[in-house]
Amino acid sequence: MFNTVVLVFELIGTMAFAVSGAVTAMKKEMDIFGVVILGLCTAVGGGAIRDITLGCTPPAMFTNPVYAVLAIVVSVIAFIPAVQSGISHSGKVVDALMLTADSIGLGIFTVVGIQTAMEALAEPSFFLLIFVGVITGVGGGIIRDVLAGNTPYVFVKHIYALASLGGAVVCSLLWSVTGAAPAMLIGAIVIIALRFCAARFRWSLPRAKIK
Amino acid sequence: MFNTVVLVFELIGTMAFAVSGAVTAMKKEMDIFGVVILGLCTAVGGGAIRDITLGCTPPAMFTNPVYAVLAIVVSVIAFIPAVQSGISHSGKVVDALMLTADSIGLGIFTVVGIQTAMEALAEPSFFLLIFVGVITGVGGGIIRDVLAGNTPYVFVKHIYALASLGGAVVCSLLWSVTGAAPAMLIGAIVIIALRFCAARFRWSLPRAKIK
Amino acid sequence: MFNTVVLVFELIGTMAFAVSGAVTAMKKEMDIFGVVILGLCTAVGGGAIRDITLGCTPPAMFTNPVYAVLAIVVSVIAFIPAVQSGISHSGKVVDALMLTADSIGLGIFTVVGIQTAMEALAEPSFFLLIFVGVITGVGGGIIRDVLAGNTPYVFVKHIYALASLGGAVVCSLLWSVTGAAPAMLIGAIVIIALRFCAARFRWSLPRAKIK
Repeated sequence: MFNTVVLVFELIGTMAFAVSGAVTAMKKEMDIFGVVILGLCTAVGGGAIRDITLGCTPPAMFTNPVYAVLAIVVSVIAFIPAVQSGISHSGKVVDALMLTADSIGLGIFTVVGIQTAMEALAEPSFFLLIFVGVITGVGGGIIRDVLAGNTPYVFVKHIYALASLGGAVVCSLLWSVTGAAPAMLIGAIVIIALRFCAARFRWSLPRAKIK
Repeated sequence: MFNTVVLVFELIGTMAFAVSGAVTAMKKEMDIFGVVILGLCTAVGGGAIRDITLGCTPPAMFTNPVYAVLAIVVSVIAFIPAVQSGISHSGKVVDALMLTADSIGLGIFTVVGIQTAMEALAEPSFFLLIFVGVITGVGGGIIRDVLAGNTPYVFVKHIYALASLGGAVVCSLLWSVTGAAPAMLIGAIVIIALRFCAARFRWSLPRAKIK
Repeated sequence: MFNTVVLVFELIGTMAFAVSGAVTAMKKEMDIFGVVILGLCTAVGGGAIRDITLGCTPPAMFTNPVYAVLAIVVSVIAFIPAVQSGISHSGKVVDALMLTADSIGLGIFTVVGIQTAMEALAEPSFFLLIFVGVITGVGGGIIRDVLAGNTPYVFVKHIYALASLGGAVVCSLLWSVTGAAPAMLIGAIVIIALRFCAARFRWSLPRAKIK
């Protein structure tokens, strides 16, 4: 039962990040193969970094192909309407799609990262859990942006990583209290809510400029 | 005998990718050390990613220095005539050199990646073989382009990764039929041929633009 | 005693690289969270690459949070005066700060990388020691520059990696003669001295331009 919930979570997160990678690639006018590869790297990249960090090799993306296959299929599906409709998508629709896909992926992957660390290590420290969660959540997006030649989104926009961090703390604290499934669900909801609120109300953090 | 063939293959691929990294660095007007480092990273980067993915640590590039030494020597050799002749190379010659070096490296490293996975894992899945092959083939070039500040070639040009993928499928399918050596040879030839044809006949894949 | 020296070395190197990452982020006008993340990645990135390369998973940054916590605190402290004083820092002060922080980090992390390889492997080859040292030294800076969208410093400026390489050779050669602590100290001093001299006297290496 719990494993099924985690699997469904992971599949949704994979689809969400694949869409965000594919849209980024199409904005850069990449061809269909570039779109698929960027969708794939975004979707499975965070998990691959997590597995290599934890010493779980080969990473799950290689031993269980369902995530990669799903990411490829979703990227192709995202490509087709874009070609058919030409350049007709307005910037607002695309941006809203990106925000939604990216938020859901961020929320789910962060808590799945924590769950993977819980399973892989005998006594993971609180600190390690938070780190692995955030890396799993933001890793795919960083790979996407670096490969596309953009400054990683996590560095410039609102409180992106802070949302992941907040949800990771909530999820890790709840884990021993409520058990795994509620902790993951609440953690993911916290992240998605923080991320949306930050975008909606234009929350921002102080910044300094050095010349 | 077979190991010798694999070694010769690897040495040729290493030299080819070192040249492609060194030429990229010289196009960016890096100094001799930048040229050597970029040649080195391009030549051994794909294999390092492969070994870390498979859990073979430390990667072969560290335990067996022949690849790294060769890459360094080749990068220096590629640097010397460029300095002597100044800016006299025409763009066409350099582009043809890059295409040839990069195609040979792509072909060889893809099939060597598959061979490494075959040796490292007891029962590698077909899916894992393809993935590890393609990652070994395109990984060095992605590192090269990201470090040089270019959009990775694999995302923008023709059917680069598709060639690697096609050859990886051919090599993996032939492996149990013909044995390792013929499978690797045919796989590499398929990749190099696809890559050249794509460049020669300007094969391209559909692309979408989102505003 | 020796372990304490190594720890102090590592803490100083961590602070130095955290400053260099934070300053880079502020130059790019990132918000406080971007500044902290870039400071953190620069400070612990080289060590994480080293540990994953050596197969020491999870990397020390996860199992021993002191480095990450220190990097975060230093990044925040570097941020505060920058905000208060607005854009008043002159370019020269910032550049001198960056040079100093980066040189110290480079020197310390290179020799700490060698020491880690000495402990992790039974009989590390001379070649592996040099490589792991240089990767630990320059890895964090490469991650910093790639994430910030800059061409990695190691490729464009003076003899940056050559300094790390020279000190790594000195440290590895001295190791069996003088013991660990003097070898590390002398190696780090060589690197910092080379780095400063290169910047001070504008040492540079030949470069070629290909059109």
